[in-house]
Amino acid sequence: MVTEEMGAARAPGRPRSEKAEKAIVDAAIDMIAEGTGVAELSIEAIAARAGVGKTTIYRRWSNKEDLVVDALATLKAPIPVLDAASVRENVVRYLGSMQQETHHRRTRCIMNIALSESERYPHLAERFREIAIKPRREALRSVIQRGVDSGELRADVDVEVAMAALTGAMLFFTKWRDNEDDLPLDLPERIADQILTGLRP
Amino acid sequence: MVTEEMGAARAPGRPRSEKAEKAIVDAAIDMIAEGTGVAELSIEAIAARAGVGKTTIYRRWSNKEDLVVDALATLKAPIPVLDAASVRENVVRYLGSMQQETHHRRTRCIMNIALSESERYPHLAERFREIAIKPRREALRSVIQRGVDSGELRADVDVEVAMAALTGAMLFFTKWRDNEDDLPLDLPERIADQILTGLRP
Repeated sequence: MVTEEMGAARAPGRPRSEKAEKAIVDAAIDMIAEGTGVAELSIEAIAARAGVGKTTIYRRWSNKEDLVVDALATLKAPIPVLDAASVRENVVRYLGSMQQETHHRRTRCIMNIALSESERYPHLAERFREIAIKPRREALRSVIQRGVDSGELRADVDVEVAMAALTGAMLFFTKWRDNEDDLPLDLPERIADQILTGLRP
Repeated sequence: MVTEEMGAARAPGRPRSEKAEKAIVDAAIDMIAEGTGVAELSIEAIAARAGVGKTTIYRRWSNKEDLVVDALATLKAPIPVLDAASVRENVVRYLGSMQQETHHRRTRCIMNIALSESERYPHLAERFREIAIKPRREALRSVIQRGVDSGELRADVDVEVAMAALTGAMLFFTKWRDNEDDLPLDLPERIADQILTGLRP
């Protein structure tokens, strides 16, 4: 085990502290993905797994929750660029990015844990929402609102319900379905077409 | 602590074994609702909490997972009667029953745990789906299919996507929303109206 304190040779490119940070975050992610609950996760175990000293972790994160929030945030796919001309195309891109994420077993596992532990770790859940969920949600809200403003969608569309239907339909397929079959590749198009039909003038 | 073995006086009404069973199931639910993960839950702790002997539990359940599945199943609201004349009314009833459940903090907490622990306890998740999720899902599928058959909904409606949109929209509001504000009381109607608009001829 090579700890930072032992003075491993500095690799070219990334500074050493950035490498250590990545190793720490990866270790936390791996452990959670393997089924360790946040309550059971210890700084000591993360340090051992990452091959760093505990002080290296505490230099950057003052507690376990902050480290977990940062680790979870790295797993979210970036917000897709939603600058297409049509609402449909933007919605398909958005849902497509949601579906992409589900291909990663680690992401699914971790998202489940992050959201399920909100009773025990309300601060963790709150920060996770701020970092990983709200910005994406705002992007979709903006797509629908622009559609209403341009007349592509009806003026009386209930924006919150529309967002819930689009996002919820995808979450339903990715998280709540009856089986573990592969998702159909055209799911984003199917959801967008069926729901947008009800939102058009 | 009064254990069954100690021969507590039998109360009128329910047979003693049924009372013990309820105490055991309640104890398991309380502990999970308080944040105990399934991995940490022990038959010993459940027995102590329920005021029964461990043998009383093992007489009925051969392992912890079976007990947890039965406990979770008791928390699901029964399937609402979906025999109204219109698809809309049946959908509103269905979504209303979903919303009812969310008023119980215990239910929300436990549903989260049940579904999040599917990586660690696939057998638990599978049985939970069979007992608590599939029958309700079938009821909604039947409502939509009857609407398609009667012509109230379009013949080309994608039944799976329609179910995902209706259920997913409600789940989105109850589980994935940004804040803990009370849900609007007319949410079932708002979701039903907006989504069904897109499904009608």
